[in-house]
Amino acid sequence: MNTTNPDPQLAALIDLALTEDLGSGDLTTNALFTARANGAAGLIARESLVVSGLDVGAAVFTRLDQACSFKILTQDGSRAKQGTVLARVHGPVRALLTGERLALNFIRHLSGIASLTREYVKALKGTGCTLLDTRKTTPGLRRLEKAAVRAGGGSNHRLGLFDGAMIKDNHISAAGSIRAAVNTVRKSIPPTLKIEVECSNLKQVRDSLAAGADIIMLDNMPPEKMAKAVTIVNGQAATEASGNITLNNIRAVAKSGVDFISVGAITHGARSVDISMELE
Amino acid sequence: MNTTNPDPQLAALIDLALTEDLGSGDLTTNALFTARANGAAGLIARESLVVSGLDVGAAVFTRLDQACSFKILTQDGSRAKQGTVLARVHGPVRALLTGERLALNFIRHLSGIASLTREYVKALKGTGCTLLDTRKTTPGLRRLEKAAVRAGGGSNHRLGLFDGAMIKDNHISAAGSIRAAVNTVRKSIPPTLKIEVECSNLKQVRDSLAAGADIIMLDNMPPEKMAKAVTIVNGQAATEASGNITLNNIRAVAKSGVDFISVGAITHGARSVDISMELE
Amino acid sequence: MNTTNPDPQLAALIDLALTEDLGSGDLTTNALFTARANGAAGLIARESLVVSGLDVGAAVFTRLDQACSFKILTQDGSRAKQGTVLARVHGPVRALLTGERLALNFIRHLSGIASLTREYVKALKGTGCTLLDTRKTTPGLRRLEKAAVRAGGGSNHRLGLFDGAMIKDNHISAAGSIRAAVNTVRKSIPPTLKIEVECSNLKQVRDSLAAGADIIMLDNMPPEKMAKAVTIVNGQAATEASGNITLNNIRAVAKSGVDFISVGAITHGARSVDISMELE
Amino acid sequence: MNTTNPDPQLAALIDLALTEDLGSGDLTTNALFTARANGAAGLIARESLVVSGLDVGAAVFTRLDQACSFKILTQDGSRAKQGTVLARVHGPVRALLTGERLALNFIRHLSGIASLTREYVKALKGTGCTLLDTRKTTPGLRRLEKAAVRAGGGSNHRLGLFDGAMIKDNHISAAGSIRAAVNTVRKSIPPTLKIEVECSNLKQVRDSLAAGADIIMLDNMPPEKMAKAVTIVNGQAATEASGNITLNNIRAVAKSGVDFISVGAITHGARSVDISMELE
Amino acid sequence: MNTTNPDPQLAALIDLALTEDLGSGDLTTNALFTARANGAAGLIARESLVVSGLDVGAAVFTRLDQACSFKILTQDGSRAKQGTVLARVHGPVRALLTGERLALNFIRHLSGIASLTREYVKALKGTGCTLLDTRKTTPGLRRLEKAAVRAGGGSNHRLGLFDGAMIKDNHISAAGSIRAAVNTVRKSIPPTLKIEVECSNLKQVRDSLAAGADIIMLDNMPPEKMAKAVTIVNGQAATEASGNITLNNIRAVAKSGVDFISVGAITHGARSVDISMELE
Amino acid sequence: MNTTNPDPQLAALIDLALTEDLGSGDLTTNALFTARANGAAGLIARESLVVSGLDVGAAVFTRLDQACSFKILTQDGSRAKQGTVLARVHGPVRALLTGERLALNFIRHLSGIASLTREYVKALKGTGCTLLDTRKTTPGLRRLEKAAVRAGGGSNHRLGLFDGAMIKDNHISAAGSIRAAVNTVRKSIPPTLKIEVECSNLKQVRDSLAAGADIIMLDNMPPEKMAKAVTIVNGQAATEASGNITLNNIRAVAKSGVDFISVGAITHGARSVDISMELE
Repeated sequence: MNTTNPDPQLAALIDLALTEDLGSGDLTTNALFTARANGAAGLIARESLVVSGLDVGAAVFTRLDQACSFKILTQDGSRAKQGTVLARVHGPVRALLTGERLALNFIRHLSGIASLTREYVKALKGTGCTLLDTRKTTPGLRRLEKAAVRAGGGSNHRLGLFDGAMIKDNHISAAGSIRAAVNTVRKSIPPTLKIEVECSNLKQVRDSLAAGADIIMLDNMPPEKMAKAVTIVNGQAATEASGNITLNNIRAVAKSGVDFISVGAITHGARSVDISMELE
Repeated sequence: MNTTNPDPQLAALIDLALTEDLGSGDLTTNALFTARANGAAGLIARESLVVSGLDVGAAVFTRLDQACSFKILTQDGSRAKQGTVLARVHGPVRALLTGERLALNFIRHLSGIASLTREYVKALKGTGCTLLDTRKTTPGLRRLEKAAVRAGGGSNHRLGLFDGAMIKDNHISAAGSIRAAVNTVRKSIPPTLKIEVECSNLKQVRDSLAAGADIIMLDNMPPEKMAKAVTIVNGQAATEASGNITLNNIRAVAKSGVDFISVGAITHGARSVDISMELE
Repeated sequence: MNTTNPDPQLAALIDLALTEDLGSGDLTTNALFTARANGAAGLIARESLVVSGLDVGAAVFTRLDQACSFKILTQDGSRAKQGTVLARVHGPVRALLTGERLALNFIRHLSGIASLTREYVKALKGTGCTLLDTRKTTPGLRRLEKAAVRAGGGSNHRLGLFDGAMIKDNHISAAGSIRAAVNTVRKSIPPTLKIEVECSNLKQVRDSLAAGADIIMLDNMPPEKMAKAVTIVNGQAATEASGNITLNNIRAVAKSGVDFISVGAITHGARSVDISMELE
Repeated sequence: MNTTNPDPQLAALIDLALTEDLGSGDLTTNALFTARANGAAGLIARESLVVSGLDVGAAVFTRLDQACSFKILTQDGSRAKQGTVLARVHGPVRALLTGERLALNFIRHLSGIASLTREYVKALKGTGCTLLDTRKTTPGLRRLEKAAVRAGGGSNHRLGLFDGAMIKDNHISAAGSIRAAVNTVRKSIPPTLKIEVECSNLKQVRDSLAAGADIIMLDNMPPEKMAKAVTIVNGQAATEASGNITLNNIRAVAKSGVDFISVGAITHGARSVDISMELE
Repeated sequence: MNTTNPDPQLAALIDLALTEDLGSGDLTTNALFTARANGAAGLIARESLVVSGLDVGAAVFTRLDQACSFKILTQDGSRAKQGTVLARVHGPVRALLTGERLALNFIRHLSGIASLTREYVKALKGTGCTLLDTRKTTPGLRRLEKAAVRAGGGSNHRLGLFDGAMIKDNHISAAGSIRAAVNTVRKSIPPTLKIEVECSNLKQVRDSLAAGADIIMLDNMPPEKMAKAVTIVNGQAATEASGNITLNNIRAVAKSGVDFISVGAITHGARSVDISMELE
Repeated sequence: MNTTNPDPQLAALIDLALTEDLGSGDLTTNALFTARANGAAGLIARESLVVSGLDVGAAVFTRLDQACSFKILTQDGSRAKQGTVLARVHGPVRALLTGERLALNFIRHLSGIASLTREYVKALKGTGCTLLDTRKTTPGLRRLEKAAVRAGGGSNHRLGLFDGAMIKDNHISAAGSIRAAVNTVRKSIPPTLKIEVECSNLKQVRDSLAAGADIIMLDNMPPEKMAKAVTIVNGQAATEASGNITLNNIRAVAKSGVDFISVGAITHGARSVDISMELE
């Protein structure tokens, strides 16, 4: 929602979402409020949460009616206690009531991701290890969910298939070896992009290192094996742990010395947090 | 995904989701597989689940490459044990690998909703009460999530603001009374649409009934009060329970005699279920 | 044209219509007027008419140039005598001349519908019967034409196939009976939607009533038979007369006691009324 | 609907029209027919008419479901007696019933224009004068309505503001004189385009001729004055009569010797003709 | 970029171009500048050139951020010496840096065309012959390139296949003769459009003249043969020279007396001129 | 044009380009050929060239009419002598003639880039240095032009602002130092992306190296200074030469030992090559 970089995809998503909810119009609100009636409302945290997505909520209301003004009172990434007024919106009552559900659906979902991410980040505190997200996101909402991860204190892995090469089993089989795969990929991608290789054993780690991989993913290894892998790599590449990471085991994994840990659950496993909108 | 009713919104959502993931292309796969390499893969349930969304997965692969053929082996709404092959897809390996993540993101999410819905439906078994969803859905995915609810055995409440009138607190305040609100709305909507009034106490229930409401929503009432409301209504309108319904209390709520119970959590509180894709 | 509910379909229609008329540009006007020349014009009724669509005309001019301001002088639904200035538009002369034809094409067409609708509404005066439109509208202009019907004093039937169920002959044959059809439909639609059954004889009326239809359409029946049907229904469902209704017979039909009469001709049979634009 | 020249505007119009009618789906048909049920239907003329728009109807059905096949039995421009089967469509019953209304709305409207145009063309028979349409068309449907005019035997004036220059009063005032206007426009348009000047008196006719106008429009002149104008022009430019032309006076106007007569009413004043669809 | 005639195609082109360059965002600039940082920059000619396309550059910056203001200091078509500040843009630094490359890519390309066109126009000085462009333009940029030709002092031939008829070899073969081709085309196009025939010898010139062609193209003829053709035509049609025209031979061609000379190289053979943007 | 990765941007570009050329249709061809006439044509090199873009030409014809079949006879990147038939297209004559100009505009432009790129690549033969393109491409055609560079034997630099970080003067000033800039960017981008720093002197080279830059751009340095920079860098980062590289000096620059040389002129300075289409 950076105003300097217009995001046609976000605009398309909001239009898609408005269309599915409004269809031919908000029958009830249009019948009972004139176009001239104005009002104000607050968005209120109904539980403790980490904030994300208020700018998307703002975009929903201003898309409905440019006369809406939306004031963000808590920045993305800040923790809000139960009862906190996160934002206020003024404007035509029709826009407020018609947009309420969609705005909340966005903010509750994204703040849920930020809140869960914060739990994982806290579990890593002091380890020097960085939490990453994955491509396991809701279709159409990836950039928003990745922004929510950042709000929660996490970092983003590649956005998609285009801003980083990731060599997996099937790729290695096709190329014949890790070395062949890395070489072939290197020749076909811009020099600004790194190559990561997914490894499930130490031989693959050594092969990847020898092939010049930039990042070595340690997939579903027990922490002790990861520690060995880190020793083998010895700073010649970055290391990333992945697979079956939970709040319970993430700190142990981090202590293996890996640079990054990626966790799919922070996006696909987060629940919506409770936020309501109250007309004032 | 009904082929008779083309769904431009679903096409737009898939394109949005492909664009966010593919961007300028799947660098790794394009480097390592030629356009001519063909393959096959199975989608496999990694836990017990209720199936939904396979047709959306099919649409992802055929959008990537019309040469893909996707064979659905388990119908929407059927329960699949761990290890079941849900579907098979044949086609260019590039399309299989490039589309894998997006197809899984859809199917895992939607089957998660179907699976959770099934739990609620089972809890209602024999009560004669119908489970409904709400408008608390993921922006852009409403129709898919509502189809997942049906796959799970639930029924759909109105799709949006356009196919049913729902009079809430703010609407009543604006109109001056429930009667005034119902009358005003009735005059402005097509005769094919019903009017529901959200009631938080029995006086509102009586007022709604007197005003000719078609459906009376009992919002956040304890089951005993709901039972009283049902007695008051006495079949002259339909009744719907809403608010803080959980798997623990839904059967008790149903026993109050309401016709419908609506539960937001079946869409916004479902977790993704585990499904993987394996190249054969 | 409700500013609170942005209407992407109306925007798409205006763009389609501007594109077909402007193509690569208004050659004559661009050659003879600079971008800086400003002017003003009035839209004038050349015959007595009921106004509709001025807001669409406004949207045409502001789409061409945001510097245009359009002042509506007669509200939708008001009657204007010959010579009345319906609206004034100020702005760049290029926009005024380039948009003139399209704005007039919209307003003349929609005011024509409003004017004809008013005739039918007057014929019903005092009968307590409500005039409805149909789905026989110009492709792409349905919402505008339905707004014109309201401007003329009529009411809207369902907007489309999505906001009301209408069971016709082919549906009944497929289901086996009216009862089966109503039951099947009831189970598959949201509880906020009503079911209407098209009946061509009194047996079908009784069957529909027994099946629990919400609205019974009396299709192409003579007024006396309609009166019998109304007696049979006896307030247990709403009744709608349809088929071959004209200004000559509509009052007689209404006296049969039906709740609604639907007339396709108010949309597909209205002629454009005469409105011109004069530069001042 | 020329398959060699894809028409993105027609596709957009059909999608707009399907969206306004289908919205979230044809509830009744989807409840009562499975996706697998196939059927066939005929489109039947319910009165004598000139055919136009069957290809648009075909596009509606195939847009709904590519499995539909539409067989046109009467070519555009042919006269069909009451009872004639104009076309047959086979395919999924869902697509047939869901698309019926939209297909008919198109074909009835366009055949109405073709039928009315034929009346005007007959009135001109033997005069050597050519009937033209105008820009007074339904927004978004211009190309379809212009094709209907051709089906009726008329010819098309310019499609829009881009494929011909038309100098009117306001343009002349701005330029200072007809000569100045013609000269300025000539210098700014491609050499492949002609210039027409709208004249309301014989002095303007002489000025236009002197200025080198390619076509001279005789606006709202009585036939005798037109005859004088034709004599003045003497074949050095083409002549077009315009304004208040009716079926009653068109032949008299033609006898003035003008090359073209343009009539707005053939598009904006045509009524829909009666065509129905019957499942077989 | 005429504000009175909104150009949806230009908007689409700019969005396409921004999307291909920005993708998921300007990583570097977003990391190092806040959304609040403002700045100013000048666009500076690094060589002598004829200006075109500054308005397109303005549209790029305001599309990125509506807070950008772009001041054009040299009008389209004016010659700028090396070192001239062509325009200044103020606004968020993010927008300035993110949009710099695309704005320059447009302006450098279009000013290159204007600059080359000016050379050809100078070569024609005093001959009374008009320089025309062709349809050999960059896909998607035709209108911009044709505006650049006008900025350079040239005139535009038809914009495309729709605003003028051009009969070539294949068309003549299909029709059987030039006369048949002209007659058939004349009957099927609006009366506001002219017909041009491409001739490669004097017989074709005579045939075209006899058939009533409005413009006769002399294709790839030596200047002496063109002079003969001009004598044959003798003002009864316009003449256009085409094929292998260079800066070296254009004046000789013009002296043959043709009305127009069309040159593809002014669009497809122009090099970008050097313009840079400097933050102040 | 990889069929496995649908490219909505290419489809949008082709539609934009068809719309600007076809507008309301190819008047001449539609008048003279029926929709049923079929034909075949060859695309023939009129000079020696390196092939690129034939697949885009194919997409043009099949977009016009799916009945077209396009057979590519020379692969992208192969050199074709004058007279070579590059491809053959069969299908409706209307589609062949209507699409001819656009298909040629694409292929001539892209083959021009491939041909020029080949010259630069030859000049680098044996040096071990890799030729890169830049972001100085035609707006909307970047991916096509980058594919043409690959066809010519070059490699692609980053596609845009999203797949690699490039720190320039203004970024360094904003951050305070190269070190600060690199650190800030590193923390905000995915771990799969590299950071390049633009250096204009050896101090900046040393600072970039110390800051951990992945790629060091040597901007506008004389070859001797580049050689020193390469010595300083000593393999700890990649090096890229940029600025004022021509066919005359590129080999000298390469001998400085840089890994990459980027040349804007291969995209913005290439001329179209001569290719024609002949009906058979």
